[in-house]
Amino acid sequence: MADVSSNPNSASDTLTLDGIRDSLIRQENSIVYSLIERARFPLNRQIYLQNNASIPGFSGSLVEFIVRETEAIQAKAGRYENPEENPFFPESLPRPLLNPHKYPKDLHPSGASINMNKAIWEFYFDKFLPLLVADGDDGNYAATAASDLACLQALSRRIHCGKYVAEVKFRDAPKEYETPIRSKERDTLMKLLTFVAVEEMVKKRVEKKAMVFGQEVTLNNTNEGGKHMIDPSLASRLYSEWVIPLTKEVEVEYLLRRLE
Amino acid sequence: MADVSSNPNSASDTLTLDGIRDSLIRQENSIVYSLIERARFPLNRQIYLQNNASIPGFSGSLVEFIVRETEAIQAKAGRYENPEENPFFPESLPRPLLNPHKYPKDLHPSGASINMNKAIWEFYFDKFLPLLVADGDDGNYAATAASDLACLQALSRRIHCGKYVAEVKFRDAPKEYETPIRSKERDTLMKLLTFVAVEEMVKKRVEKKAMVFGQEVTLNNTNEGGKHMIDPSLASRLYSEWVIPLTKEVEVEYLLRRLE
Repeated sequence: MADVSSNPNSASDTLTLDGIRDSLIRQENSIVYSLIERARFPLNRQIYLQNNASIPGFSGSLVEFIVRETEAIQAKAGRYENPEENPFFPESLPRPLLNPHKYPKDLHPSGASINMNKAIWEFYFDKFLPLLVADGDDGNYAATAASDLACLQALSRRIHCGKYVAEVKFRDAPKEYETPIRSKERDTLMKLLTFVAVEEMVKKRVEKKAMVFGQEVTLNNTNEGGKHMIDPSLASRLYSEWVIPLTKEVEVEYLLRRLE
Repeated sequence: MADVSSNPNSASDTLTLDGIRDSLIRQENSIVYSLIERARFPLNRQIYLQNNASIPGFSGSLVEFIVRETEAIQAKAGRYENPEENPFFPESLPRPLLNPHKYPKDLHPSGASINMNKAIWEFYFDKFLPLLVADGDDGNYAATAASDLACLQALSRRIHCGKYVAEVKFRDAPKEYETPIRSKERDTLMKLLTFVAVEEMVKKRVEKKAMVFGQEVTLNNTNEGGKHMIDPSLASRLYSEWVIPLTKEVEVEYLLRRLE
């Protein structure tokens, strides 16, 4: 699989593979924009150091502080009532201040609670970010951390859409999945969910989007072949090494709980 | 003027018209991306109603709540130590938790404190947003308010770069500006700062960026002429009706205080 998952803005009442695919394609754009925006800033290592900020009652990095606090505000506005959204710091989030929107209950309850954000956090900061940005410090710590959050949220949403992909695939062919689910055959499930040709297409499309959206636009011409704001092949690598494998891991985890 | 203002990420130590122009051009991209991302959601009117949320100790709209609280977090990370950043709710912002970065002091102190965010807030919500997004409610209130904040911050940064434009222009020809400043001739100053041909070029370029960055990208072809995620002419109108006039207002206000 790869090119299929939940809808963009919670219209998940029409749960079809086509709807999910459209949503995933749109989400690629959000991911690419967010990477381009993060790459405006150098690494700004200060914000990732543990205990570097003097925050009363808090030990951790500045970026962790900002993500935690921003998630708390967004939780008040109901962000995590949407089953497509998963917080990075789910402990003790405040309750929504508005009456929550009624989201369709498409997911099987045991699978709905899967949260892979720890793995997303780790690959993003430890492996991907140093490839994306230049080394250096320009002091724009708050703006940098805010763009990290935008990247993390876009990636998290995309990867957790694997729940919807798995649900639709299961509904389409419950018999096919039942045996490997009952016998917990991860490898068999992974094979059932893997379509190499589709994955290749997704990686190529994401690379092309990085090229198109990250090009220098002047009035005389567009310039896809020219200088880019991020290396387009990095977008493809992001999908290849992390986004697609983690989405499939979400799918497998979801299926393993589907008959509980 | 129009196509000139401060640098992207506070490298303002090299205060030249070229440096400012490059920064403004890069900021156009951020503005266009942020508009495209906001347009993923319908209006979601709920978040703009006064007193709609039950927030203890707070009367106002949900979007105001989210912007205020998010600005407070970002202030702790030092966002508003950067003279290019201006808060929408400057009252009682918390202090930074890290040692602030040393930003160059390029601006004249009286002009540095100019804050046009009230005007930006009003045109954005009252006039521009209804043109940008479809009517409707999809319940994604937190994500919607977060994208409003991204738009507001990108617009605010661009418009307040007028301070740097004015400073550079003043330094380049102090004699020319002195008389109209002393006699408070706003119209003369506005004329000195207006270059219609440059403004037209900026508007065209922003429209083209909305077309290029908002196109549907498929593996077969790119599709500038096809469907777009936002109406490209709206980006041009945003600049024409609000961004350029407000930037020039910042410049005039700045100059009027330049000899204090």
